[in-house]
Amino acid sequence: MNKIVECVPNFSEGRDLVKIEKIVAPFRGREGVKLLDYQRDEDHNRCVVTVVGEPEALTAAVLEAAEAALGAIDMRTHKGQHPRMGAVDVVPFIPVKNVTMKEAIEISRRVAETAATKLGLPIFLYEESATAPHRRNLADIRKGQFEGMPAKLLLPDWTPDFGPAGIHPTAGVTAVGARMPLVAYNVNLGTADIEIANDIARNVRHLSGGLRYCKAIGIDLKDRGIVQVSINMTDYTRTALYRVFELIRIEARRWGVPVVGSEIVGLVPMNALIDTAAYYLQLEKFKTEQVLESRIYE
Amino acid sequence: MNKIVECVPNFSEGRDLVKIEKIVAPFRGREGVKLLDYQRDEDHNRCVVTVVGEPEALTAAVLEAAEAALGAIDMRTHKGQHPRMGAVDVVPFIPVKNVTMKEAIEISRRVAETAATKLGLPIFLYEESATAPHRRNLADIRKGQFEGMPAKLLLPDWTPDFGPAGIHPTAGVTAVGARMPLVAYNVNLGTADIEIANDIARNVRHLSGGLRYCKAIGIDLKDRGIVQVSINMTDYTRTALYRVFELIRIEARRWGVPVVGSEIVGLVPMNALIDTAAYYLQLEKFKTEQVLESRIYE
Repeated sequence: MNKIVECVPNFSEGRDLVKIEKIVAPFRGREGVKLLDYQRDEDHNRCVVTVVGEPEALTAAVLEAAEAALGAIDMRTHKGQHPRMGAVDVVPFIPVKNVTMKEAIEISRRVAETAATKLGLPIFLYEESATAPHRRNLADIRKGQFEGMPAKLLLPDWTPDFGPAGIHPTAGVTAVGARMPLVAYNVNLGTADIEIANDIARNVRHLSGGLRYCKAIGIDLKDRGIVQVSINMTDYTRTALYRVFELIRIEARRWGVPVVGSEIVGLVPMNALIDTAAYYLQLEKFKTEQVLESRIYE
Repeated sequence: MNKIVECVPNFSEGRDLVKIEKIVAPFRGREGVKLLDYQRDEDHNRCVVTVVGEPEALTAAVLEAAEAALGAIDMRTHKGQHPRMGAVDVVPFIPVKNVTMKEAIEISRRVAETAATKLGLPIFLYEESATAPHRRNLADIRKGQFEGMPAKLLLPDWTPDFGPAGIHPTAGVTAVGARMPLVAYNVNLGTADIEIANDIARNVRHLSGGLRYCKAIGIDLKDRGIVQVSINMTDYTRTALYRVFELIRIEARRWGVPVVGSEIVGLVPMNALIDTAAYYLQLEKFKTEQVLESRIYE
């Protein structure tokens, strides 16, 4: 695989294993596509697939999976705790290797257009692919959920980018877009005081004056008797992991609270950690190509 | 490639491009083998190849390259600054992926035996493959160089592990073995005083009381007006990069000298840097499988 794109489609089915298998099947045993993971959640009634591949092969597989989801899911009877607006709820494309963000946006537009035409799905482009600022944020698009979409799509601000002007009767609405890889990163504090985690989260996150590509909230880890700043890094290439970590350490000093550990949840791009090692070792002129593994698989 | 071994054979030819091309050719365009790099040095009159591959395919390619080297090199007329004892001077195998050290040793023994039988080369097993403690260190085996080998091989301690009891008339003697990846790592100090670099090198290296898998010397970087502790890490899985770095920082304090930077020369295994990032971020329960790239290529 020379060019690699990641896709993390979310489907609104987390309970029926037969249906889930039908949706996931197009990602299996396919040249140029590798299924990394899929996780279903019964409470959310949702399944999140993580797959990588060459652009052509991956987009073909995603379109097949979307078609399978339309055959398997009826949103009129769907219940689940996670907000959702469609059977193929959201389809983000993430540049991984030898692919620019511009190319990832192009891929997302192609998939959106084809899915709209072939499957009759109304589609919003979101994040980096968004055609207007108010459509960048997935939460804004999804607001009102499946049940509110028929009315929402009548508003001038919410005409879909592709496909019909009304919802698909059983599959609702889909968001497709390109974004940077998310890094789910948590920093654990040596205190049980949730107010301290909340305060630090407020200070480091973009929303309230902190680092640009950082979302954060305080979380109580009751079983461990400590609290945590739970972070989503939305662009580790511009807001580095070590910068958030060191900033939290600095903020924690105000409370005399130690950082007792941190954790990465799920997958992380190699460069997010290489970059961190390079910072702490004060590496001069280091290049990713010096990593043996990057040469083996280039 | 499921199992990956690295091989870094050193050939005693650094000047004749036609001959070098013949030696390197067996590593090109071969299923299951990837030539990462080869560097020749005219002063050393030596060529160092870096290649990775699946065990079977790689060993076949190495044996072909050795045969080509025997056809191209006559040690009786070889001159160069680097110590050498044979046309195929040394052939280390390094476990990279899904390969244990035990397997790498097995591979080195198989290559040694085949090369001895098919090419009539006397071969010493060295490093992890060594059959006696005095044969572990390559410098000890190579002492006396090509010119001294006929007499050395007559000594009871220096009967080759495989092949004839005397040297190959034009190709001399070869060492084959398995070892951990070397990481060439330098730490730069904010002083021009070479004595400080020498003192710190002495304190951190294994030879004189320092860290087990660390070799180090002081070096004068005249053009930058600073000095450097130049390090070879011989097993980064047991002596971590960050440990050497932090120990040098601690030693430098005695002189009031700052660490102004560090550098990795050539290739470094991903895990050496991941491990470093995990230390500084105080990562809890992090697994290499969380690195996206490791999943893509697994």
